Amino acid sequence: MPAPTFRSVIRWGDPAQSGALNAATREALREQFNLSDTAFEQPFQAGDEPLRVAPGQLSDEQLHELQQLVGPENVDTSDVARARRSSGQSYLDVLRFRLGQLPKAPDAVVAPRNEAEIDALLAFCGRHSMPIVPVGGSTSVTRATEFPQGGICLDLSRHLNRVLEVDAKSGFARVQAGLLGPHYEAYLNQQGFTCGHFPQSFEHSTVGGWLAARGAGQQSTYYGKIEDIVLGMKVLTPAGSIDCKPYARTSTGPDWKHIFLGSEGCLGIITEATLKIWPVRGRSFFSFFLPSWEKGVELLREILQADFGRPGVLRLSDPEETELGLKLNGMAGGTTDTWLQRLGYKPGERCLMLGSAEGDTQSGLLLAARVHALALLRGALPLGPGPTRKWWKQRFHHPYLRAPMMDLGLIVDTLETSVSWTGLNALRQGVRQVLKARPRTLAMCHISHAYQTGANLYFIFTSPIDRDRQLEDYQQFHQQVVDAILAHGGSLSHHHGIGRLFAPWFREFAGATALDLLAGVKRQLDPQGIMNPGALGLAPA
Amino acid sequence: MPAPTFRSVIRWGDPAQSGALNAATREALREQFNLSDTAFEQPFQAGDEPLRVAPGQLSDEQLHELQQLVGPENVDTSDVARARRSSGQSYLDVLRFRLGQLPKAPDAVVAPRNEAEIDALLAFCGRHSMPIVPVGGSTSVTRATEFPQGGICLDLSRHLNRVLEVDAKSGFARVQAGLLGPHYEAYLNQQGFTCGHFPQSFEHSTVGGWLAARGAGQQSTYYGKIEDIVLGMKVLTPAGSIDCKPYARTSTGPDWKHIFLGSEGCLGIITEATLKIWPVRGRSFFSFFLPSWEKGVELLREILQADFGRPGVLRLSDPEETELGLKLNGMAGGTTDTWLQRLGYKPGERCLMLGSAEGDTQSGLLLAARVHALALLRGALPLGPGPTRKWWKQRFHHPYLRAPMMDLGLIVDTLETSVSWTGLNALRQGVRQVLKARPRTLAMCHISHAYQTGANLYFIFTSPIDRDRQLEDYQQFHQQVVDAILAHGGSLSHHHGIGRLFAPWFREFAGATALDLLAGVKRQLDPQGIMNPGALGLAPA
Repeated sequence: MPAPTFRSVIRWGDPAQSGALNAATREALREQFNLSDTAFEQPFQAGDEPLRVAPGQLSDEQLHELQQLVGPENVDTSDVARARRSSGQSYLDVLRFRLGQLPKAPDAVVAPRNEAEIDALLAFCGRHSMPIVPVGGSTSVTRATEFPQGGICLDLSRHLNRVLEVDAKSGFARVQAGLLGPHYEAYLNQQGFTCGHFPQSFEHSTVGGWLAARGAGQQSTYYGKIEDIVLGMKVLTPAGSIDCKPYARTSTGPDWKHIFLGSEGCLGIITEATLKIWPVRGRSFFSFFLPSWEKGVELLREILQADFGRPGVLRLSDPEETELGLKLNGMAGGTTDTWLQRLGYKPGERCLMLGSAEGDTQSGLLLAARVHALALLRGALPLGPGPTRKWWKQRFHHPYLRAPMMDLGLIVDTLETSVSWTGLNALRQGVRQVLKARPRTLAMCHISHAYQTGANLYFIFTSPIDRDRQLEDYQQFHQQVVDAILAHGGSLSHHHGIGRLFAPWFREFAGATALDLLAGVKRQLDPQGIMNPGALGLAPA
Repeated sequence: MPAPTFRSVIRWGDPAQSGALNAATREALREQFNLSDTAFEQPFQAGDEPLRVAPGQLSDEQLHELQQLVGPENVDTSDVARARRSSGQSYLDVLRFRLGQLPKAPDAVVAPRNEAEIDALLAFCGRHSMPIVPVGGSTSVTRATEFPQGGICLDLSRHLNRVLEVDAKSGFARVQAGLLGPHYEAYLNQQGFTCGHFPQSFEHSTVGGWLAARGAGQQSTYYGKIEDIVLGMKVLTPAGSIDCKPYARTSTGPDWKHIFLGSEGCLGIITEATLKIWPVRGRSFFSFFLPSWEKGVELLREILQADFGRPGVLRLSDPEETELGLKLNGMAGGTTDTWLQRLGYKPGERCLMLGSAEGDTQSGLLLAARVHALALLRGALPLGPGPTRKWWKQRFHHPYLRAPMMDLGLIVDTLETSVSWTGLNALRQGVRQVLKARPRTLAMCHISHAYQTGANLYFIFTSPIDRDRQLEDYQQFHQQVVDAILAHGGSLSHHHGIGRLFAPWFREFAGATALDLLAGVKRQLDPQGIMNPGALGLAPA
């Protein structure tokens, strides 16, 4: 086995995936960024140096106590385990790794076997004023799980990973928070059900992570975000446990689930959840070219407001994203392109829309028919199921592309924001302006989730980094884009969360009284401040 | 104008409504409760004595200060105004009024003209350690708005009652919390929209009350409960204001809306809300006889889980409620009944189901067709739109019947609870057992709201009261029924709330850590404990 490197430790996903760029992508990137052959031959700052991790700070007594608590085989203090859990998967995380600037790692990765052991670990950390952070798949893109003062990384995925109950009649399942997405889905599929939650990180994510990040899946327009899927939650806090019972709806005072959803490990350890499940039924794909972004947006709005059912996948790519997609698929400038242009779908204006109908088959047929009828009224060209099917097959693969693109000296990042239909176009325009003000920046945008009252805009941007001041260059650029989002009325996040990356904006975004309330809730549930200190901007940073 | 009496002050709703029982109802009640002619001629404890209210406790200086703050015309210290706001509309409230045991009234009913005046009133009450309770339509059935230590009744319905903005494109409206339901709906109707929220108290309720009570409307199976309708909220607390922005969805830490939804005036004053709106479209009614309760429940579950759209109204009456309905409509024992029985729909087994299709017309047609297909599989007899249309016309009238039934010496009360599909039948059976253990008790039940994972069971019960110990008799009975609900896994409430009526059960229902957290949140937002003290069981009781 080769020695672990900075690169191998921060690597995304399945090691069996090559993650190499295909020829079309290389060509498109060469053209966009005016890259030389050398760029492709000599990876920039690949992070291939052997991993170096500062040793943990547990005393022998502390380590012994931990081993007593959960069993020695459930306390991992190895360099690789600690380094892997030291950060998430934001662009900044990867950049820091490749610069050899590994953030401080947890002192140990601890996998409790039951809830009593979690309580004991909370008490242990309280006694030693030691941070404790529940970590799922370490796929945060907001620096949500870090260990600036070391401490314990709590890994529920080893033991607390079971489906406890499937109530097929009521349509829900009760599961443990360490359950991995693919294991959950496979278990449900065997019984004819689906979990409905498929974030891009699905393959490496846990139920606890879905909840703590208040995440969304790629089919959430149909199934709902995780806050729409979850019925009940059990949370262990240093101040005691809170059990939110899984009623469909109640009127029994505040709904505490909504305090723990998005709490990013700052308030307690989510140990169990009761989640809605759906029968596995048919799925059909559709796709269109729209003559313009504006017509595409109107179409999506109309679909969501017409109320003949909600699509599962529903995505609208803006002209720049659409054009790159055509290029990568070898269709830009070819005969297809000529044909498209003759039909009125012109580069720089045309937009690709992808969609699926889920659930009940008859309703899905009606939905697809109505979508087609509305699309035609907006001047759309139906493309059949092909483009969506193609996207579907690759839908968890895009994160693999980041490493080889970073090898070319490129910033590769994304930002997402919730906005009303009324504010949507101005927001995209405003953010695009900031992105395009930076030379040679590829600035793509799509609607990834749509609602009756608005949508989520997902920006993907790529730009050559200033090699002499990488961190500063990226951070400055990132800050400008976030500022533009907020200036145009977007939310600070739609499904990625706050973590430490967006903490500098959080107080102004949420308001001082709300942030003081959050700090107060934290003081009450976590009086010693041991739960993921610094995330959500909760002191100490 | 006649002098106000206890009865006239607690009277439900529109004075133009006679509220008298019709002949069929009188006959049914006579038979059920073995009533004599005298009972109908001599109302029992009608509360016709002239209203007596203990004087308020404001000092001249305090009154003067209040008048300075909001203008003298906006400070009402009259007996009638204070008495009207001294309680809600639970059975116990009416009983206490008719016994002449008026609860302590607020010292003044104050109608601020703007948010600055609300802040000033909060400061005023803080300085004088005086309770302040925002009150909407005074229609609570859980003793949510009371003044055990006097204080200020805050009335937003006089000045803070406007629609501030309708964003037709995004599909939402921003309104002030004092806006009355019918005014809001009329305003939206003029622009082609509907608010979608129609609680039984609709005619007398305010938007602020909908939110503070975490209420549901009669068409909430389609439009959602108020927590599904609200996008944004502004809340003024003694510690500052919190503005929850109206995004469709976000991931920006806790969602504070869910702390104020159901907060019953204990945490702050809701001043504004942004609510989803829907285009006014068609509505069609359907109704069925089901051969049994169990088959009806299975049908409703199948409709909600089949996922071909949600009905608007969806109600299933149990056999006892069905039978009384037939009787009151002159159909029990007649030719219709003979015909029904020949078709296999037998008294004591058959159940009436009512429903509507709302929203998009084509989808509504499909929904109705699919509902009929599923219903036929369950052995249902389609009854056309008539029964639902009849119910629709009277849907806000039932509360008027309580007073004349109380004139007969009857307890008339309701309880409602959320339960999973799996637990539903056992819960109904268990609660029914307790209800029927009391002699001559009419015990009706229907499903009033249905979800993918469960439903709300709504119990209506009527029983002769022990005239010698009315309060004790009622309270003992009520307690037994609530105990039975909880013993069978029901929620303490689905849409009525907690108030003071359910506070004794609240701590055990929600758990100690959750209740401590609620108390902590209250301490932080309302450090002097002036906001509706005692509701939600928050001390002082």
